[in-house]
Amino acid sequence: MSGKLFGVGVGPGDPELVTRKAWRLIEGARVVAYPMPDTGESFARSIVAGAIRADATEIPMIVPMRTGRFPAQDIYEDAAARIAVHLDAGENVVVLCEGDPFFYGSFMYVFARLSARHPCEIVPGVSSVMAVASALQRPIAGRNDVLTVIPATLDEAEIERRIEGADAVAIMKLGRHMGKVRTVIERMRLADRTGYAAHVSLEGEQLCPLREAPDHPPYFSMLLLYKGSDPWLR
Amino acid sequence: MSGKLFGVGVGPGDPELVTRKAWRLIEGARVVAYPMPDTGESFARSIVAGAIRADATEIPMIVPMRTGRFPAQDIYEDAAARIAVHLDAGENVVVLCEGDPFFYGSFMYVFARLSARHPCEIVPGVSSVMAVASALQRPIAGRNDVLTVIPATLDEAEIERRIEGADAVAIMKLGRHMGKVRTVIERMRLADRTGYAAHVSLEGEQLCPLREAPDHPPYFSMLLLYKGSDPWLR
Repeated sequence: MSGKLFGVGVGPGDPELVTRKAWRLIEGARVVAYPMPDTGESFARSIVAGAIRADATEIPMIVPMRTGRFPAQDIYEDAAARIAVHLDAGENVVVLCEGDPFFYGSFMYVFARLSARHPCEIVPGVSSVMAVASALQRPIAGRNDVLTVIPATLDEAEIERRIEGADAVAIMKLGRHMGKVRTVIERMRLADRTGYAAHVSLEGEQLCPLREAPDHPPYFSMLLLYKGSDPWLR
Repeated sequence: MSGKLFGVGVGPGDPELVTRKAWRLIEGARVVAYPMPDTGESFARSIVAGAIRADATEIPMIVPMRTGRFPAQDIYEDAAARIAVHLDAGENVVVLCEGDPFFYGSFMYVFARLSARHPCEIVPGVSSVMAVASALQRPIAGRNDVLTVIPATLDEAEIERRIEGADAVAIMKLGRHMGKVRTVIERMRLADRTGYAAHVSLEGEQLCPLREAPDHPPYFSMLLLYKGSDPWLR
């Protein structure tokens, strides 16, 4: 009988923003997998390091973080195969995912390769979009507002179209696309309505208006733009 | 010196999906406010009832839940005034909010009336959108996907336009708008790509394809539609 595959969201960075359920599952996990860049430590693992058992079997899934490009799919094939060995042996496997597992995260790639043959459970996490709004102390959207979330990888025309068509916009994975995105927002005269955040909820957290944001932000950074009618003021 | 106003997201319903930080703050709170319908109990309070101190001062903020219509603003004026009495006396006040405080939630209305004169801290929560995707075991969006979140209160033409323009769509607060939304989705031949959820993460949770969804869903229900290119399969 197969073990169960748990996809667990660990939130934006602060260990206290992990859900009680996620923390409990990780504390009990005998096998823990997590995305790992080719250099440096695993961000997901670092968030919940305090919960991982000392005797847990760890499966780092090496995912080269080339800012702006997406990882090759064979990385996920390898990871899924390694995880499947444990599932087939009847062991549960907890897979960590930054933020939420099914919201622009890495877990969905592992899930897609394993869910047909193994029982799964997904534990939602606090998304960086919510964490950024909380840190900036700016509501994301309310009442009749339309919110659009876009990756910064889209081209200028697409970005402009999306901003035009929404009341609130979250632009994620800024990485090396800041120049392009800033150009669009400034052209649309919306810089004053746009906030920037990097490493949200962590000690090195950076929060500021777009005008003060760096030209080369880190991968885990985003912009939050609001151009609706501020229903919460009325 | 003013007390601090905490806006705390309590997630979609399951007490285990509350963050560790939110639980800790609620356990220590001497004054707790929460939205309350005019009949029945407070959903937000019920989620964290196990954490509220027996001797805490409670401030129910009566918000009539007329499905599809929004509460009158003077309700929030009253609530803010009552909370301000405690803040001005130097006491911290924790305000509970279902889901996340700044994502189509009720807290932003209280925040808007108090943040100018009182220090605030917002604790993000697990949004129902993430909870629904996890429960349906369907990724929300990945890679270059564009996600749009809309309230079901928009008119048919707007709903159709939003669905047309996105890869993934979350349609919230279905309430009495199901007929209209279903009509649009069926006309666009997207019913097979749409999942329904109500009371997600609770014992009475309902999950099914749109075709099987009820004609009169509860307030806390949503549809999740995906029409992108399933990047996680490749």
